[in-house]
Amino acid sequence: MTTHRVAGLMAEIADVGRDATRGGWSRFVYADAELTLREWFVEQAQRRSLEVETDRNGAIWAWRRGTGAAGAGAPHAIVTGSHLDSVPGGGAFDGPLGLASALAAVDLLDARGVRTERPLAVVAFPEEEGARFGVACLGSRLLAGAIDPDRARGLRDVDGRSFAEVAAGAGLDVDRIGPDPARLAGVDAFVELHVEQGRGLVDLGRPVAIGSSVLGHGRWRFSVSGEGNHAGTTRMSDRRDPMVVAAGIVLAARDAAVAHEEARATVGRVVPVPGGTNVIPSRVDLWLDARHPDDAVTTAVVADVERQATRLAAAQGCAVTLTEESWGGTVHLDAHLSGRLAQVLPDAPVLATGAGHDAGVLASAIPTAMLFTRNPTGVSHSPEEACEDADAEAGAVALADVLERLLREPVGVAEAST
Amino acid sequence: MTTHRVAGLMAEIADVGRDATRGGWSRFVYADAELTLREWFVEQAQRRSLEVETDRNGAIWAWRRGTGAAGAGAPHAIVTGSHLDSVPGGGAFDGPLGLASALAAVDLLDARGVRTERPLAVVAFPEEEGARFGVACLGSRLLAGAIDPDRARGLRDVDGRSFAEVAAGAGLDVDRIGPDPARLAGVDAFVELHVEQGRGLVDLGRPVAIGSSVLGHGRWRFSVSGEGNHAGTTRMSDRRDPMVVAAGIVLAARDAAVAHEEARATVGRVVPVPGGTNVIPSRVDLWLDARHPDDAVTTAVVADVERQATRLAAAQGCAVTLTEESWGGTVHLDAHLSGRLAQVLPDAPVLATGAGHDAGVLASAIPTAMLFTRNPTGVSHSPEEACEDADAEAGAVALADVLERLLREPVGVAEAST
Repeated sequence: MTTHRVAGLMAEIADVGRDATRGGWSRFVYADAELTLREWFVEQAQRRSLEVETDRNGAIWAWRRGTGAAGAGAPHAIVTGSHLDSVPGGGAFDGPLGLASALAAVDLLDARGVRTERPLAVVAFPEEEGARFGVACLGSRLLAGAIDPDRARGLRDVDGRSFAEVAAGAGLDVDRIGPDPARLAGVDAFVELHVEQGRGLVDLGRPVAIGSSVLGHGRWRFSVSGEGNHAGTTRMSDRRDPMVVAAGIVLAARDAAVAHEEARATVGRVVPVPGGTNVIPSRVDLWLDARHPDDAVTTAVVADVERQATRLAAAQGCAVTLTEESWGGTVHLDAHLSGRLAQVLPDAPVLATGAGHDAGVLASAIPTAMLFTRNPTGVSHSPEEACEDADAEAGAVALADVLERLLREPVGVAEAST
Repeated sequence: MTTHRVAGLMAEIADVGRDATRGGWSRFVYADAELTLREWFVEQAQRRSLEVETDRNGAIWAWRRGTGAAGAGAPHAIVTGSHLDSVPGGGAFDGPLGLASALAAVDLLDARGVRTERPLAVVAFPEEEGARFGVACLGSRLLAGAIDPDRARGLRDVDGRSFAEVAAGAGLDVDRIGPDPARLAGVDAFVELHVEQGRGLVDLGRPVAIGSSVLGHGRWRFSVSGEGNHAGTTRMSDRRDPMVVAAGIVLAARDAAVAHEEARATVGRVVPVPGGTNVIPSRVDLWLDARHPDDAVTTAVVADVERQATRLAAAQGCAVTLTEESWGGTVHLDAHLSGRLAQVLPDAPVLATGAGHDAGVLASAIPTAMLFTRNPTGVSHSPEEACEDADAEAGAVALADVLERLLREPVGVAEAST
């Protein structure tokens, strides 16, 4: 008899935010589907007698109190968590699996009668994907002071609504967003469990891995301006067509990434303005996602694409501007903490991830580790993303084992350094 | 003292459908802005004691009755008109100038005391641009039997709403849309005035031209399917990225058009699915607008692009399908009727147009001619499109002169042939 606690939790939210147009799920921060998932998370936390609070940056923290003192001098917390938001038309597991696994791990700790001085928290971060406001890991970046609050307030979604407006509408006091060092100082370690987004565990035939590093990555917006005109009356020789330049940039990005082993460059979003079939666009905006383990290579790839873009724009009588929307170098997760995980999970392989994570942002502030649960398709940011029930359960058990060890024998690094 | 009747009318609607995001004006058929323009047109017609009716395809006809008999045996009508809808972020004049000029021409005929047996009608066609439902000249195509009514009913806008649903919501009996030969049989001649969409009149230093032909043109949708996946975790060598194929198609279209003198090929609309910055798209749809005076060349251009698309898709492990969304060969406007216009306007140059028009569709059914009013920028389908007040007035006077002549001395071709 096998219990599938995580699968049961995931089944409860399987219909939230389904996207009939794109396929998969679209759960944008502070839109209906994500708000529904927040309510679900709060309700699940309350069922487990966890104390729920929303921090100044919109992350929800569900606390399992310890037996130690509260207030100043209280023992530092062990924290796990992930995010509820998704990319457009994404998979069901990217984000929510980490929270469902955390809730299941709390159940396991309760069943084991684990009571420690040290408290445990499960945290749900907002806008990890940056799918609505363009900056990935916005909640953890604000918490860790990795983005200027004014810049965050001014970020706009596709409908032109600002983060300040939308977050205020969801009840956040947007004047107070920003770094929260006191909160971080109370955390001993952060462990994020996430569905794997590649084929590492599939190829190794294992259900759970320990993370080693988060690939450096950033987003750059190319804005190409030309002359909007009529598709029928404008001779080819009279055109200043930004779409031709944009197409060249897509190919230049592919070529630049192929030229560097392990580099990745992607254009997933292209917005012609005005976007009419019989209209030469006046402007085309396109976004480059570029990544490489060596930050210098990522920088070189982007510089190469920028050079090509400038050349292509000049040839078409167009102008191009490049804006860095986000950037974070390759992060090596905490070696000491990850070593502790390896003691608890001796059979778990150690894998790097090409995806971005709140863990990658928090690693600059607190000891941070990651666990990955096997994804049989290896596909992510797509409805094809998958996780078998037994693997999800194995992930939750591994997380519970790790949390129990950390609660009983804390890392202590944060305490020593504060 | 110069009266600027047309400029006065245009000023009344200058704020309708302004597009703060794209710039210019967005007036999509049956959306709020276009409905407001319809109300304005009806009110203007009623002020002039014109009798207003909406035909079974949603075109508004404003009748200036003649002194001849009504019903069977009634003298055939002279008809002028254009459209109220726009491309996304288009100019103010493309369409509405023809209707404002027609209303001003009615005023001139009234002022001149022109009363003839023969009636005059001013008609506003819906969805000339095809900006909402993808098929240009939808209203005139339905009237002339140039599109299957079932296909028209099933056309969908970007939100997935069908033409049948939207048109019914605007009060149309969508079961009755389709060819209306009896209405066409009652028309002696159709003359459409339109703002020029190129630099012909600017270069010639003239305010008004007579049209000779409408360039053959069509729209084709390329749908490229690959594998949606994560932008960070998917190696370049493991990708099946439809965006790379789409970029190649944009460049192939440009190259194919450049290879044939007078050919035009444009990709103004590209839609990646799901469209996330950190997501390799699973599909990219893009639309090709291709035109040439010789229909065989247009066909060859499209075939060339299709060949390249198939090759590019195979190289990326993607699949591509091509769908013809609309097609109309080059139309030579009625030589006899245009000759009559030239008698009335001996100083007007004769110009071909690269743009599509309802006149180009109706030319297959009834004697049809066009007038163009100078556009000082030569730019169209863009906020840069322009028309000076004096030129607009000259256009209306030219139209009134033409209409008066045709009302007094009809073409008679339609009567002879029915």
